[in-house]
Amino acid sequence: MHALVDGTPVETVPIDDRGLQYGHGMFETCRVINERIPLWQFHAARLSATAARLHIPLDVAAVDAEARALAGKHSDAVLKILVTAGQGRRGYRSDAVTPRRIVSVFSAPVETVDRNIGATVRLCQMRLAVQPMLAGLKHLNRLEQVLARAEWNDASVAEGLMCDVDGRLVEGTMTNLFLVRDGRIVTPDLSRCGVAGVMRRVLLELRPGIDTPIEMRDVTLEELDEADECFLTNAVIGIWPVARILDRDSARLRPGRIARSIMNALEARFGFPRSQ
Amino acid sequence: MHALVDGTPVETVPIDDRGLQYGHGMFETCRVINERIPLWQFHAARLSATAARLHIPLDVAAVDAEARALAGKHSDAVLKILVTAGQGRRGYRSDAVTPRRIVSVFSAPVETVDRNIGATVRLCQMRLAVQPMLAGLKHLNRLEQVLARAEWNDASVAEGLMCDVDGRLVEGTMTNLFLVRDGRIVTPDLSRCGVAGVMRRVLLELRPGIDTPIEMRDVTLEELDEADECFLTNAVIGIWPVARILDRDSARLRPGRIARSIMNALEARFGFPRSQ
Repeated sequence: MHALVDGTPVETVPIDDRGLQYGHGMFETCRVINERIPLWQFHAARLSATAARLHIPLDVAAVDAEARALAGKHSDAVLKILVTAGQGRRGYRSDAVTPRRIVSVFSAPVETVDRNIGATVRLCQMRLAVQPMLAGLKHLNRLEQVLARAEWNDASVAEGLMCDVDGRLVEGTMTNLFLVRDGRIVTPDLSRCGVAGVMRRVLLELRPGIDTPIEMRDVTLEELDEADECFLTNAVIGIWPVARILDRDSARLRPGRIARSIMNALEARFGFPRSQ
Repeated sequence: MHALVDGTPVETVPIDDRGLQYGHGMFETCRVINERIPLWQFHAARLSATAARLHIPLDVAAVDAEARALAGKHSDAVLKILVTAGQGRRGYRSDAVTPRRIVSVFSAPVETVDRNIGATVRLCQMRLAVQPMLAGLKHLNRLEQVLARAEWNDASVAEGLMCDVDGRLVEGTMTNLFLVRDGRIVTPDLSRCGVAGVMRRVLLELRPGIDTPIEMRDVTLEELDEADECFLTNAVIGIWPVARILDRDSARLRPGRIARSIMNALEARFGFPRSQ
């Protein structure tokens, strides 16, 4: 790991940082490919939007410069940007916020899923709370994901799917979810909970390799069982086709035409690796 | 502020701390009175219980020693204990957790409420999400409280009350709530959301100055309007009787016999200051 905190190469923050004290902040995790962050515009847009929602007056130009500086040294890596509401007095009240920017770079992830075979995933017991006022944001309050990820230790299980407290299927612990049935693509609506991922937005807006409409709506567990394809997205891994869901009877499921088409397009357009 | 991090007098933590990255941790805020923490046993019990729920193998004896060391220098102060899941790799998964203990001491709070007159409070727009798997815990995911507290800037408003997403009245941003009607005391059930405060537990279990049963159940906003007394509790302030709720017609409300009786008992038994 190599990091800049407010542009300075240090690797600590003061204990009174409001990110540590209350999770008052947000983050982005970006793939670096050939010294660039191909999806940077989407990450920057989400940072700005989230900062506004959390009352953090973020200098996106400074983040941009720091992200470029670190990314520029790597052919394949992961860049994490974490922004907090900075130093604060004790107590929930924040005034005169001076944000703190923490930009760090990590090795590219070890590929754990062979995309030709597809991922094995599971369903988590942990549910996502319904909280429309924070829905979609990649904020620092991530205990639900931490506890969901702690439910399994089997390295052959790549991801855990999460429902909300009302039983709707929402997302993976670190990925967004797409289903295909009879050639139609569906992804869960995230207006009540969930993280509106950058790769999800890329699929919805840029439609790489996609030639059918994508429905955004509530999704049930039963739809998962009846899907022809299921795939998971995030801005670091790109796409994981799902081959198997533990303890569910998803007989029709296999890595399919639509996931392959998107992977090919993400590779051609942005250089996202499509297999091990 | 003076602080110990894992027993060492430093005031920074590494940026890869899971408390900062994901809010994977918890905290306690304790009143120090005459070089001691009178409610220590309750704080320590909650720390242990929360650590277990968050898969953090906490050494409570070490926290105890550090808390005593810092408290022992102060006649009136606030001690904050923050425990995180410590250093982690990137990603939600945590294994082989080595917790990090951050113990810091602050000046006693400036009294903002004259307990003879009572506090003015308001209702927050921000709602609490229903999340039974985290309910009651004083974990580090506190964005709901941060955003609720950001709703007002008027120093004459001491606290904001919060409902859950289903409209039940639950707590204040930093306090628990009690209502009195016709001599009966009620406090909201916290099995779906909310922080089970130490002072709330003191009232429920030690019953200082209390000679009637306390009901713990769901509470409606209408009950707030019809209350004879309303008071707020936390482990630093003790009790604030509520005199007025902005924009609500709570005609009967006044600082009353029961709140006064509890304040007197908390002062006699633990030394909690009862007025300015």
